[in-house]
Amino acid sequence: ALDFRAVGHRVYGISRSQQTCDRAIQNQVVDVAGLHPQILKGVDVVFLCPPIGAIGSAFAVVQPHLSSKTVVTDVGSVKGDIVPTLHAQWPHFIGGHPMAGTAQSGIEAAQSCLFQGRPYVLTPVVNTSATAVETMTSLVHDLGANLHVATPADHDRAVALISHLPIIISAALISACVESNGSAAGLLAQALASSGFRDTSRVGGGNPELGRMVAQFNQSELLRSLDVYERKLQDLRALILDQSWEGLEAQLAATQQSRPSFVETFDQ
Amino acid sequence: ALDFRAVGHRVYGISRSQQTCDRAIQNQVVDVAGLHPQILKGVDVVFLCPPIGAIGSAFAVVQPHLSSKTVVTDVGSVKGDIVPTLHAQWPHFIGGHPMAGTAQSGIEAAQSCLFQGRPYVLTPVVNTSATAVETMTSLVHDLGANLHVATPADHDRAVALISHLPIIISAALISACVESNGSAAGLLAQALASSGFRDTSRVGGGNPELGRMVAQFNQSELLRSLDVYERKLQDLRALILDQSWEGLEAQLAATQQSRPSFVETFDQ
Repeated sequence: ALDFRAVGHRVYGISRSQQTCDRAIQNQVVDVAGLHPQILKGVDVVFLCPPIGAIGSAFAVVQPHLSSKTVVTDVGSVKGDIVPTLHAQWPHFIGGHPMAGTAQSGIEAAQSCLFQGRPYVLTPVVNTSATAVETMTSLVHDLGANLHVATPADHDRAVALISHLPIIISAALISACVESNGSAAGLLAQALASSGFRDTSRVGGGNPELGRMVAQFNQSELLRSLDVYERKLQDLRALILDQSWEGLEAQLAATQQSRPSFVETFDQ
Repeated sequence: ALDFRAVGHRVYGISRSQQTCDRAIQNQVVDVAGLHPQILKGVDVVFLCPPIGAIGSAFAVVQPHLSSKTVVTDVGSVKGDIVPTLHAQWPHFIGGHPMAGTAQSGIEAAQSCLFQGRPYVLTPVVNTSATAVETMTSLVHDLGANLHVATPADHDRAVALISHLPIIISAALISACVESNGSAAGLLAQALASSGFRDTSRVGGGNPELGRMVAQFNQSELLRSLDVYERKLQDLRALILDQSWEGLEAQLAATQQSRPSFVETFDQ
């Protein structure tokens, strides 16, 4: 909202809390704020931003108040279920996933330029209206975000691999270390844990609700990525078990070489 | 060496390269440097600092030149093999593992206060001489490091969990993501990889020789930690497969709660 206002768009906000509406106006995050969806009458674009499981019901609340030309989008981190559901109800719907954020939430956490240089995925499907695509392409540009266009399925597979899978494998590391608690080695492990453990365990020690939600809404792709991951882990385990030290080093050299193709994009 | 000199110890350095010796003197890292172990005649303590596989042969080179009272220690990251081997040859041997370092190596990478506030594990065994324990305790104190005393077995189990296991599970993540290269989802995954992937994959994209070496010298404990890890991963997978979302969230809440007991020690 801050960035859209900065380039001259007029922004309307809806909240379930009058206090949030008051703060949004006071902090100049939006031009107009209110509890009732009637205020959306006449807007060009609606962003549905509730937790992923509530996007459909949020749309049901606002739909009666929208003109048929209104473009509707969401910001959910999984697209496979919501896109066909809302597309069937609204031709000008287009799924979106802006990939930026902080650990904070709520109106006081609003900050300018949050999406600058970060990925924003749009997931049009066959028959998504040209208006929806063009409008959202222009708005993503307004945010300074990097636009990516993908099918909902490709989006969900990609985020399963690079975002949801890390949560699970990182959580399993913490659980494995916790199991040794109470033994001398376990106490020593706690004292010796350094940057390797800290980084590898970070996302597994994150918000449990978020982890549950991505697993729930991206279950099939997460299980598929876990299959691939477990196979790769077994390959490494076999090299260690067979004392194939040259093979292990070659495999680790390959991962060392591959990582920058993922990480450098992010570091840009 | 820099820190020992700073508190008044006289430091002798041995290298296979005359150039390294010259730079060590020039940079005031040591008081005396040379290619020949004869210069160690009369020293009180010897630190063996070659790669882990070469510690035994390094000791064989210097041993003929040491007085029988000399304390000998090493800085290898696995203790189970080297400690009994050298203890059998030298009563004043005590295993050590100072846990600090940078990605750089070589004489130009020397820096003061590297060990300040970091763990330094000593691994005395039955019959390790009191002289060796007392001398090394005092030197660890001189470095400002945090002393931990453990059996070689407990040390190796602890570092397998918090240091060696993360390398393998992190490398498997990179391999899993690489497998999708070439597909639309794989290309998108590269573009979308953000901090979660970056942190979880960091140690798996590190020095392949180091990864090979810890696996080679800590094989049995690494395999044991992989067993525990794979069991924990299967537990999480079962929750996802069974759609036990409450159970998954409870498990992720437990890992969120457990992580600080490892990480806060490090952040001290």
